[in-house]
Amino acid sequence: MRGMIKRTVPLLLAAGMGLAATAWSAESLQDVMKRRSLSQQDLLAAAKTYVPTGKRDEFLAFSSGGQSGQVIVYGIPSMRILKYIGVFTPEPWQGYGFDEESKKVLAGGRIDGKDISWGDTHHPGFSETNGEADGQYLFINDKANPRIAVLDLRDFETKQIVVNPIFKSEHGGAFVTPNSEYIMQAAQYPAPLENRKYEPLSSMNEKYRGGITFWKFDRKEGRIKEKESFSFEAPPYWQDLSDPGKGPSDGWAFTNSFCSERYVGGIEDGRPPYEAGCSAKDTDYLHVMNWKKAAEMVKAGKGFKLINGHKVIMMETAIKEGLLYLIPEPKSPHGVDVTPDGKFIVIGGKLDSHASVYSFEKIMAAIKAGKFESKDAYGIPVIALKDAIHVQVQLGLGPLHSQFDSKPCVVYTSLYVDSQVAKWDYCEGKVLDKISVHYNIGHLMTMEGDTSKPAGKYLVALNKLSIDRFNPVGPLHPQNHQLIDISNSKMQLLYDMPFPLGEPHYTVAIDAKKLKPGVRYKVGTDSRTDKPHPSAAKAGEERIVKKGNKVEVFGTLIRSHITPEKIDAEVGDEVTIHLTNLERAQDETHGFTVSTYNVHASVEPGKTVTVKFKADKEGVYPYYCTEFCSALHLEMMGYLLVKPKGWKDTGKTLAKGSYTEADYKATVKKVVDTQAIIDSVVAYITSVNYKDFPDAVAMVEDAFDQLGHSKGLKEKHEGFAAKKDWENANLWAEQIWQYQVKCADLGIRAKTHLEQNGAKKVAK
Amino acid sequence: MRGMIKRTVPLLLAAGMGLAATAWSAESLQDVMKRRSLSQQDLLAAAKTYVPTGKRDEFLAFSSGGQSGQVIVYGIPSMRILKYIGVFTPEPWQGYGFDEESKKVLAGGRIDGKDISWGDTHHPGFSETNGEADGQYLFINDKANPRIAVLDLRDFETKQIVVNPIFKSEHGGAFVTPNSEYIMQAAQYPAPLENRKYEPLSSMNEKYRGGITFWKFDRKEGRIKEKESFSFEAPPYWQDLSDPGKGPSDGWAFTNSFCSERYVGGIEDGRPPYEAGCSAKDTDYLHVMNWKKAAEMVKAGKGFKLINGHKVIMMETAIKEGLLYLIPEPKSPHGVDVTPDGKFIVIGGKLDSHASVYSFEKIMAAIKAGKFESKDAYGIPVIALKDAIHVQVQLGLGPLHSQFDSKPCVVYTSLYVDSQVAKWDYCEGKVLDKISVHYNIGHLMTMEGDTSKPAGKYLVALNKLSIDRFNPVGPLHPQNHQLIDISNSKMQLLYDMPFPLGEPHYTVAIDAKKLKPGVRYKVGTDSRTDKPHPSAAKAGEERIVKKGNKVEVFGTLIRSHITPEKIDAEVGDEVTIHLTNLERAQDETHGFTVSTYNVHASVEPGKTVTVKFKADKEGVYPYYCTEFCSALHLEMMGYLLVKPKGWKDTGKTLAKGSYTEADYKATVKKVVDTQAIIDSVVAYITSVNYKDFPDAVAMVEDAFDQLGHSKGLKEKHEGFAAKKDWENANLWAEQIWQYQVKCADLGIRAKTHLEQNGAKKVAK
Repeated sequence: MRGMIKRTVPLLLAAGMGLAATAWSAESLQDVMKRRSLSQQDLLAAAKTYVPTGKRDEFLAFSSGGQSGQVIVYGIPSMRILKYIGVFTPEPWQGYGFDEESKKVLAGGRIDGKDISWGDTHHPGFSETNGEADGQYLFINDKANPRIAVLDLRDFETKQIVVNPIFKSEHGGAFVTPNSEYIMQAAQYPAPLENRKYEPLSSMNEKYRGGITFWKFDRKEGRIKEKESFSFEAPPYWQDLSDPGKGPSDGWAFTNSFCSERYVGGIEDGRPPYEAGCSAKDTDYLHVMNWKKAAEMVKAGKGFKLINGHKVIMMETAIKEGLLYLIPEPKSPHGVDVTPDGKFIVIGGKLDSHASVYSFEKIMAAIKAGKFESKDAYGIPVIALKDAIHVQVQLGLGPLHSQFDSKPCVVYTSLYVDSQVAKWDYCEGKVLDKISVHYNIGHLMTMEGDTSKPAGKYLVALNKLSIDRFNPVGPLHPQNHQLIDISNSKMQLLYDMPFPLGEPHYTVAIDAKKLKPGVRYKVGTDSRTDKPHPSAAKAGEERIVKKGNKVEVFGTLIRSHITPEKIDAEVGDEVTIHLTNLERAQDETHGFTVSTYNVHASVEPGKTVTVKFKADKEGVYPYYCTEFCSALHLEMMGYLLVKPKGWKDTGKTLAKGSYTEADYKATVKKVVDTQAIIDSVVAYITSVNYKDFPDAVAMVEDAFDQLGHSKGLKEKHEGFAAKKDWENANLWAEQIWQYQVKCADLGIRAKTHLEQNGAKKVAK
Repeated sequence: MRGMIKRTVPLLLAAGMGLAATAWSAESLQDVMKRRSLSQQDLLAAAKTYVPTGKRDEFLAFSSGGQSGQVIVYGIPSMRILKYIGVFTPEPWQGYGFDEESKKVLAGGRIDGKDISWGDTHHPGFSETNGEADGQYLFINDKANPRIAVLDLRDFETKQIVVNPIFKSEHGGAFVTPNSEYIMQAAQYPAPLENRKYEPLSSMNEKYRGGITFWKFDRKEGRIKEKESFSFEAPPYWQDLSDPGKGPSDGWAFTNSFCSERYVGGIEDGRPPYEAGCSAKDTDYLHVMNWKKAAEMVKAGKGFKLINGHKVIMMETAIKEGLLYLIPEPKSPHGVDVTPDGKFIVIGGKLDSHASVYSFEKIMAAIKAGKFESKDAYGIPVIALKDAIHVQVQLGLGPLHSQFDSKPCVVYTSLYVDSQVAKWDYCEGKVLDKISVHYNIGHLMTMEGDTSKPAGKYLVALNKLSIDRFNPVGPLHPQNHQLIDISNSKMQLLYDMPFPLGEPHYTVAIDAKKLKPGVRYKVGTDSRTDKPHPSAAKAGEERIVKKGNKVEVFGTLIRSHITPEKIDAEVGDEVTIHLTNLERAQDETHGFTVSTYNVHASVEPGKTVTVKFKADKEGVYPYYCTEFCSALHLEMMGYLLVKPKGWKDTGKTLAKGSYTEADYKATVKKVVDTQAIIDSVVAYITSVNYKDFPDAVAMVEDAFDQLGHSKGLKEKHEGFAAKKDWENANLWAEQIWQYQVKCADLGIRAKTHLEQNGAKKVAK
């Protein structure tokens, strides 16, 4: 059998060669189109969305994952999902909620002292600079358990979760002010603002309240400052979505609402249900707020009341200070969207057939003139619709949400009941185009379409049902995001993308070039605090510290072994394991788990994580790397040995392997032969302009890193050989070969990369 | 504003018309190719994978989700992910682990009395009939916490989780016998078989064991029978993957292994790590088992020992009864794959460069002749490699796993180190083609490629790294599944698919036509037991039962209200809410949560689910539908009111709305006008051959269902009007309109569907 190994060696040279000039098809394009029943239009759509191997998408979309509690990232135009990011729900692949560092983030979202293990994410929002998406942070809300989370787009990880101190539900968040000063979050179903306060439904009008929270965001720290945040108290209308002003309207914010009827259902008692009572009137209220003035007031320490320790501007104060106004808006609106130039606010009434365009200038004029048609039941001044409206346009049934084009005055509005998207001109008030979608569109989004500089090109219809669009997968259906080309005068449907987990409600997309995520951490980083991890271990400094019933492990991970490979504990010990991934190579993540102890960690290059558990079960528990990392990945393991209390060691030693001098010599020869191969791969690589290929350079560096790990092992195996310890001599020589295999693996990858990307011979 | 409503009406007719004849492009195909830098080859690949809107994929792939603990379903050739199925990890979108029914499934996976909230899924396997994938069930293992799960492909839900009673880790499962009699699961890292039994590592050879479990599957019940299952005790070699024989080899099973060195690492103590010691020898052992004979023996109640209450055939018995043999196999193998005809077994040694083809006929001949080269340390007869081998073929570096083509003798093997796929002939032993993949392929799969009737056409390379293939999304990278066209003599790379959550290890694919999932349950079904739910409520029979401190709600869900809309409780009450979704329409799922009480349910049409919690917090907690279901979805809510103990009702009644006779009359007129529209949509639908379109028929049925809900409401509102109760009169009339809107929504959907699918006028 040893002979087989010898024969493998020449293959290292042959790799990637010989069969490269593959004939790429026996079928013509026409054959394929005929066989697959593709029309010319289908082919054009395919050409507009297909992203060939190794090429990148133009835009990245960040979608709420609805009841999954996650954020989902996908590429446009390929519509390939790139990542699910754990936010409100523990997710083991990422170790999220399974390692101690991420548990701390989730602990920020505890409510009334208890863990909440899911979320209902609805509306993501990017951090903004001068009204433009800047690609630094993403914010996302939880409707069910009113919270908001901060995600850092340098590593696509959730860094913070904060709990809304006064709401019992909220739907409309996160909406970000033009320089990310504040993140808006509005209540949905009214309830008493005081925590754990019961009031009967008969007190709806007097004791139940809505509200709008402004979370203060600290750009430098990348965290929300809870103590510097504040809220507006609002009437028990069901506040919904918001949008802060920009440009001329910067400093103001807009929140719509529905069920301004303040209806209380009770179908079980013979009352009409909420759906009837909450949509009986023709108009609801747009809330218009001066957030800049409010923020200054709060900063000055006045004008608020503390409720549950949180600063709340009561309606009385807001009215007195001119901070809050109402304007009627057509029945049961959903989206409220400020135009890129900040001059208008577009609102669709989902039970009306119009989109209404409000003029900020007119609103300000009415406020300045003190021209109000009435006050609502709580004394808030109401501006007449006619005094605020720029234009109303009949679009179709169920207008829900609007997004803007890069072309001036062009806006797209989703029509829920019609299952259509309307393209129209909000300056002139005329419909330009319509396209049918499948089925029942909710939100829609254009590229950076809710910022001050929309990028145009694509629109995505976020359909709420898919019904018959895809292969059936049981009673619970995927959602359907449809990609539409908006670069021409007529919209063209390009692609149907099933959404396999969670119901996305809203999505935001950004030019991929604006994102600059890292691929590794500084060695020993706690990724959740962005700070050096106090328990990181360096290579060679791994150790196990036992104090009383506490076992603390300071370990490392590298292709392909865990140091230490054995952890001893006694039943009942508290075991804490800190692991640092020593890799610098891109994508060389290691995972870690201990059999049946319900811990898991994902340890990306440079990261340090901690897992903790009570060794409450006697026995033998393997631990292992859970992320495939090299050909020897399955061997990257160790044992947790939980001894009974007071176990006396028998003094028995580990069994010896049966290795001979011949084994050792064969292994040494294998190492020499393999080195010759590596040298020849290196010769190829250095014969071409590999330095012009950053990915190849990174692979070559990693290859030499791997080989570097074998430093000192030659002396080691020769030392053992001198003592005729053939087992140790053979195995340490074998370990050199393991590093050689990893080095060769990387070298071959680099070589293939160079060959496929047109590397050229260079003069020596 | 009321006027606006009137103006909407004609739009119901215009929907989907007028703009249907969209000019589909201003750009030519050549323009697009130039702009997007697409080659002719790219375009051909795009044409081979693009699936136009409403069309279906040819195959469905079921992939392990690695550390996510889930199963992932995607379509081929589009490579669109259709569903993540919750298996070992709670997943709130599906209510998995958040409703009581699914909690019971997860409770089957508790270990040592504790919940395990994740899994490391590796190898899915379909149920088989006569060696062919039959599309009825899917099985998947958990490596970290040795378990196996049963998924039903009628509803794509997890139905059962069982814990392996004797292993502490297992990698190789699930592998299914040709008529799904048993599901194989092999141990990985050796440990004492007795539960919670400590043995020092120095007792590795004597006290640590591996093993192979055969789980008995009951086809009728669709569940594993734990009591009828059994295991083979095996040496402390690291058993890995398995494959049962088929055709001539049916009744036998094959499991490979590595680290037959039985090495114990200890790098922290100066010993070479496992990766060196576990790959020092040139060969490991293929385990050959007669499972049929073993099963008969166990069924007869003999030949086994009970360990942890589980039937284990000890090595001594297996040797004596001729049930277990070993054959050397090249160094550190991964896959073991029986050819479709059952005559050969293909094995790659991941540190060798060969694939080895074993002949079942030769193995049987050696066994029959008692021709063994030796016995291993445990007395198991070892058949010489030369007496078992058919052919060995040099493929390249790191052969891992093989899958078969529909063409005779053609097999594909993944080459990990070379990052290639080799196509070769296992009859003649010659290489036919090679293709490079990115980067470092682990498993690969062809369509039904591990069954007795492979379907050919496509191959998917399951790459372990993606590095630079996609837009960067932080240090944790997606995996990369590459689709390869194998219908021609040369392989062609078609598509790179990022894997956004979890690390898939192995995937199986099935002809989509073999799957017949349902879209609804019989009303009142517990989907986890497939039985009628004892607490289902019918429409009109909703009720709340309070006994002592227990509040039990028997509720229903329908577009768009929850019955009841109010639940009263006292602090400390145990609240149990059963909800039945009364919908029959496809994709009309409702979700349910109660603010901050950490419960969630996904209630697909017909399903009944239960959520349970302790109302330990005084206050007002909205509950709502979490899955967008109609234009009035946001109004589908109610309140849980948790009163302080001994709360005395103030007797205050709900506030009245301010509705007038004029409001009522306007609403009645709106209802009449809308009915005229509905009639006109109906007129269109019945003017064409809609009955030829099953989806349209379903929508029309649902539309009339919706309208049917308004039965009796006319009498109701007229009755209130007669009593001059304008609020109730108006709101009940409004409720008719709500049903009309839902009806119109469906009618418009049906109309669009008919227009887009070429419905034709029929003669009256």
